[in-house]
Amino acid sequence: MTHKGLFITFEGPDGSGKTTQIQRLAEELEHRHRPYLLTREPGGTKIGDKIRTIILNPDHAELADKTEILLYAASRSQHVTEKIVPAVEEGKIVLCDRFVDASIAYQGYGLGESIDTVKQINAFATNGLTPDRTYLIDVSPETGRSRMKGRSGEPEEGVTRAANDLDRIEMRALAYHQRVREGFHAIYAEHKSRICLINGEQDHDHVFHDIVDDFFRLLD
Amino acid sequence: MTHKGLFITFEGPDGSGKTTQIQRLAEELEHRHRPYLLTREPGGTKIGDKIRTIILNPDHAELADKTEILLYAASRSQHVTEKIVPAVEEGKIVLCDRFVDASIAYQGYGLGESIDTVKQINAFATNGLTPDRTYLIDVSPETGRSRMKGRSGEPEEGVTRAANDLDRIEMRALAYHQRVREGFHAIYAEHKSRICLINGEQDHDHVFHDIVDDFFRLLD
Repeated sequence: MTHKGLFITFEGPDGSGKTTQIQRLAEELEHRHRPYLLTREPGGTKIGDKIRTIILNPDHAELADKTEILLYAASRSQHVTEKIVPAVEEGKIVLCDRFVDASIAYQGYGLGESIDTVKQINAFATNGLTPDRTYLIDVSPETGRSRMKGRSGEPEEGVTRAANDLDRIEMRALAYHQRVREGFHAIYAEHKSRICLINGEQDHDHVFHDIVDDFFRLLD
Repeated sequence: MTHKGLFITFEGPDGSGKTTQIQRLAEELEHRHRPYLLTREPGGTKIGDKIRTIILNPDHAELADKTEILLYAASRSQHVTEKIVPAVEEGKIVLCDRFVDASIAYQGYGLGESIDTVKQINAFATNGLTPDRTYLIDVSPETGRSRMKGRSGEPEEGVTRAANDLDRIEMRALAYHQRVREGFHAIYAEHKSRICLINGEQDHDHVFHDIVDDFFRLLD
């Protein structure tokens, strides 16, 4: 029995719980013996992980906004070519933690760079690859921030964190994260058939129920 | 006495002798007590140097063409913002070893990516910054390659080289380097008022004479 591959992305502010949810969905697929690939951005490849450490290092305060956009796109281009497209072609379900929508929200809306330019650069980087489904887990920046403070704080290999345990992007002001959230809402309004908006203020079990409810209808 | 700053780039195939020439011009400026900044791409900044090691590492055979274009642009964006523009604004003469023309020649013409797209991404990365003068030192790929073999082989910090002492880009086939040279000629044909074409098959003294002859007319 063969299934077609699927490309599924998870988006949402920091602290939205998407990493927990993506992990739970992966376990569910494991349980059902469905081949999948769990991956994330920035990173996902050896080269992408090296780019990730440049982007997230809190010592890189001088990193220019345009450099940030181009580095995310570079990591993404490598990820699409080396991992995502081959896995989907092999019939795998690719579960990806962040993708193009994150760049539009964080660099476009958050940093105030041109939305059209961010879209164009990412269309180049991805050859226009679009997810089959995107789960956008929506939480307020306040909820996100308070959850991040409660994190276990297990250090991520290669990524230096500041004394408050936040990486370079997480450290930005609440107003920035508010613009990012509004950006995600605008992207949702534009792509309602692709994006499934999930209320991330609920407890993890309810969030997972909402995701699974949609996902297995999509899968079967 | 104050002078206006200038942004001067040096372009040409590997082994064209541009690094020697740029060094000689810097010494000449030093001798004349003119403030200058000698810099290079990819690199030129702390972040750019980290990107440089990713681009040039010969172990990164899997690095996708689009990733390469985006990484060069990311390094360039950081370089323009952090170093080149501030130095020109302070009245310095910036001597830069490679800039946008190199991306158009190496990634556009060499790799066969869309020239227009490479131009657009670089226009974004540089905010449209254009050199005041470009010295394009033209040599055949054969001359370039034979000169590289005669190099001292002093290792560059952070950049791994293959057993034949070539970096990831230099290792590409002669046909690639022939397309790059044709690309440089096409760029010259388009920008004759900015680019000064120098015959790099001459000995170093004659090459330097040709550069200085133009440069000090530009400067005074």
